[in-house]
Amino acid sequence: MKPFKCIDGADIAFFEGLMPHRAFFGDKISDDYAHDEMGEYGHFMPQAVLLPISTEEVSAVLAYCNGQNIAVTTRGTGTGLCGGCVPVMGGIVISMEKMSRMLEIDPQNMTATVEPGLLLTDFSKTLEGTGLFYPPDPGEKTATMGGNSATNAGGMRAVRYGVTRDYVLGLEAVLASGQVLNLGGKTVKTSSGYSLLNLLIGSEGTLAVITKLTVKLIPEPKANLSLLIPFDNLDRCIEAVPAILRCECELTAIEFMEREVIACAEAYLGKKFPDNTADAYLLIRLDGTSVEALQPSIDVLTKLLPTLGAADVLLADTDERKDSIWNARGAFLEAIKSSTPAMDECDVVVPRDKIAVFVKRSIQIGKELDVRICSFGHAGDGNLHIYICQDALPADEWERRRALVMDALYLEAQKVNGQVSGEHGIGHAKRDFLLQSLGETQIALMGGIKNTFDPMGILNPGKIV
Amino acid sequence: MKPFKCIDGADIAFFEGLMPHRAFFGDKISDDYAHDEMGEYGHFMPQAVLLPISTEEVSAVLAYCNGQNIAVTTRGTGTGLCGGCVPVMGGIVISMEKMSRMLEIDPQNMTATVEPGLLLTDFSKTLEGTGLFYPPDPGEKTATMGGNSATNAGGMRAVRYGVTRDYVLGLEAVLASGQVLNLGGKTVKTSSGYSLLNLLIGSEGTLAVITKLTVKLIPEPKANLSLLIPFDNLDRCIEAVPAILRCECELTAIEFMEREVIACAEAYLGKKFPDNTADAYLLIRLDGTSVEALQPSIDVLTKLLPTLGAADVLLADTDERKDSIWNARGAFLEAIKSSTPAMDECDVVVPRDKIAVFVKRSIQIGKELDVRICSFGHAGDGNLHIYICQDALPADEWERRRALVMDALYLEAQKVNGQVSGEHGIGHAKRDFLLQSLGETQIALMGGIKNTFDPMGILNPGKIV
Repeated sequence: MKPFKCIDGADIAFFEGLMPHRAFFGDKISDDYAHDEMGEYGHFMPQAVLLPISTEEVSAVLAYCNGQNIAVTTRGTGTGLCGGCVPVMGGIVISMEKMSRMLEIDPQNMTATVEPGLLLTDFSKTLEGTGLFYPPDPGEKTATMGGNSATNAGGMRAVRYGVTRDYVLGLEAVLASGQVLNLGGKTVKTSSGYSLLNLLIGSEGTLAVITKLTVKLIPEPKANLSLLIPFDNLDRCIEAVPAILRCECELTAIEFMEREVIACAEAYLGKKFPDNTADAYLLIRLDGTSVEALQPSIDVLTKLLPTLGAADVLLADTDERKDSIWNARGAFLEAIKSSTPAMDECDVVVPRDKIAVFVKRSIQIGKELDVRICSFGHAGDGNLHIYICQDALPADEWERRRALVMDALYLEAQKVNGQVSGEHGIGHAKRDFLLQSLGETQIALMGGIKNTFDPMGILNPGKIV
Repeated sequence: MKPFKCIDGADIAFFEGLMPHRAFFGDKISDDYAHDEMGEYGHFMPQAVLLPISTEEVSAVLAYCNGQNIAVTTRGTGTGLCGGCVPVMGGIVISMEKMSRMLEIDPQNMTATVEPGLLLTDFSKTLEGTGLFYPPDPGEKTATMGGNSATNAGGMRAVRYGVTRDYVLGLEAVLASGQVLNLGGKTVKTSSGYSLLNLLIGSEGTLAVITKLTVKLIPEPKANLSLLIPFDNLDRCIEAVPAILRCECELTAIEFMEREVIACAEAYLGKKFPDNTADAYLLIRLDGTSVEALQPSIDVLTKLLPTLGAADVLLADTDERKDSIWNARGAFLEAIKSSTPAMDECDVVVPRDKIAVFVKRSIQIGKELDVRICSFGHAGDGNLHIYICQDALPADEWERRRALVMDALYLEAQKVNGQVSGEHGIGHAKRDFLLQSLGETQIALMGGIKNTFDPMGILNPGKIV
């Protein structure tokens, strides 16, 4: 890859002139911009951090950098897990933290238009009381709408409602040249040429910089219930999933978790989980127009689950009880992180009938290589989060075993026709696994697309392709 | 555009050797291969028609044509409405009619894997009794699965279930070079590099030739009900739609139709519609686990609809009654076609709150230019089907007015931020409107993508870009 230009005095003068007090250089740059949530993948300090407040500013920055051959990496709140927003080639970081406005809620079309820096948590607060609902629900609520779109984030409710891709109707995005694209809009279907919209979703800032999003909303489900289902062992727990999915109850979420992960979360949150007697659990959520309307589904599940080996079916119908379960689930990543000096993660997605075989194999790999492995994830869509922990291993031995475990896990995923990432993306950390999984031809096509959008290669270099 | 090579004796020998008795040339080619359902857009005879039976054959044909600079247009059953499968530059037509097998139904993963030539109607018959259901439901049931994917077909049930794009999990496709791509698979979510899968969906055979599809199935809804809702006038009818969509009843379909279109269908089918007293109708379908489970929604709608100006709410709960309504709806296109010597169609999609203003404006345009306009369509997703009819107009005057009406309609769609095509695609008939709607920058990006996939430009030349 060709080298990028290092920023000089003239560049600094340009950026300071363009956005006074919102351009930072050298030791004025916080270390936060050098990494995401996986500090394990390295620290890369940018030479400048810019905080634009408008599409025009983003366009001016990109046109300038394109002319000067300066690398540009766009960033939300840096909650990613693959180094996607980390400036591995230096250059400029555009942080979207000041482009975080809710621009419009359109009740007639059931859409919202937002700036990319808007946090998921702030977005859902703004929707409260409107009767409208944005279904994607990644665990990390301080992630941004732009970041979610750039990685095609999934989340717990994907089983019923789908992922971010299914909700982004329109994008305003700026090409490396500074040209502004308007893709899609408030229309809910289209067959009007190649879907550039779907190409940008999941492209991790390598094709264009998203400056505005229009997303689809749905009527807010008025009621929800959760079921916590203990199983005597993990095998039975996971093997129950396909039959549950086929039972026509339209589950919103179905998560699986091992006792060990729950213990981590209890220690981390200082709160007890409603049940910790079993080896493994399924956690199911149902949404509906009323609690009564959910009753037939509850009846079906309470009858079905024991036949699939469930030790019990615990209904969480109070807010307190629901919170105690879902808050624990939401804290798993942080809880595991706090239990070990370093970790690595694998976010593969496999066909749903292969979840059990994959999880069993991952446990076996952990045993063979004597590394602690924690797994939980979205059983309903085959997307597993497998965390491997350094614990007391010395650095070099950890690095050796980590690499062996990761290679083995991705190889297993490939064997069952899985994909490298279900929802976290590729960034720079998973590039080799992507190449191995998709092969040269597909990566070359992606390279050609990259070249079409960004001929100088300034946008988020070193990622995906 | 550079000229393609005309097929010569050596080419004929090659194809006859590759697929004896399944390669046709010259006057052995049926005229059917020269057009789609819109003969109005011209007849273009191919120089050869090939009927492959395997991916290997498709690959061999493409590699050969790529080397020889021969144009290749892929075709399903030719039910399209924009000339997408018509060989406007001559060359070869690959017809998928013999690659029409159902390869696998996988109940564990709830997927089906099929060949591209499988008809929608045959696919749904094969699923009968499995408890599984493929939601996309375009009006034309003899369309193929491959064609539906190539155009991102929509259909009536898109309001609840989404369009073809939402169900295609995996594609096997052959590049112009002959290389075989395997995109996606049985996994239900992914964030693993640029979505080449989503790029191929809706690309109308211009990027690669689809040879296999894996689609998502859902548990079959055990019950459904339909409501036929007469309104005194079209304005009220269409203006009622946004409120109905917001009422949380999770409609499967919501269609609108004018009396005139119903009269056409009655004449065409020789059957009476259950009601023909009103100026305009909404037709609603609800799916559920049981008729009882649908009752709360029926109650909500029967209360709501009169407040929105409905003259009545007619419940169709018997198969006979449902069939009489939906068969009429399914026959609209053929019925209008049979009522006029020639027609043109406009398949725009507009934001849902703009449907009323757009339909009213289209009626006005028809009056101003004195051309009969019939409209019906998917009110629930803003996708309108507007047909303009030649009737007794002489050919030159028809051509003049047709062009004026079409220009005016697409301009109106653009004014309300609509898209050129909701579900029929672009083909060669709507290319100018696509350019006008998206602008040079987006079309240039599509051109770059086309060039990446198909550097010689042999695949379906003259379409989209």
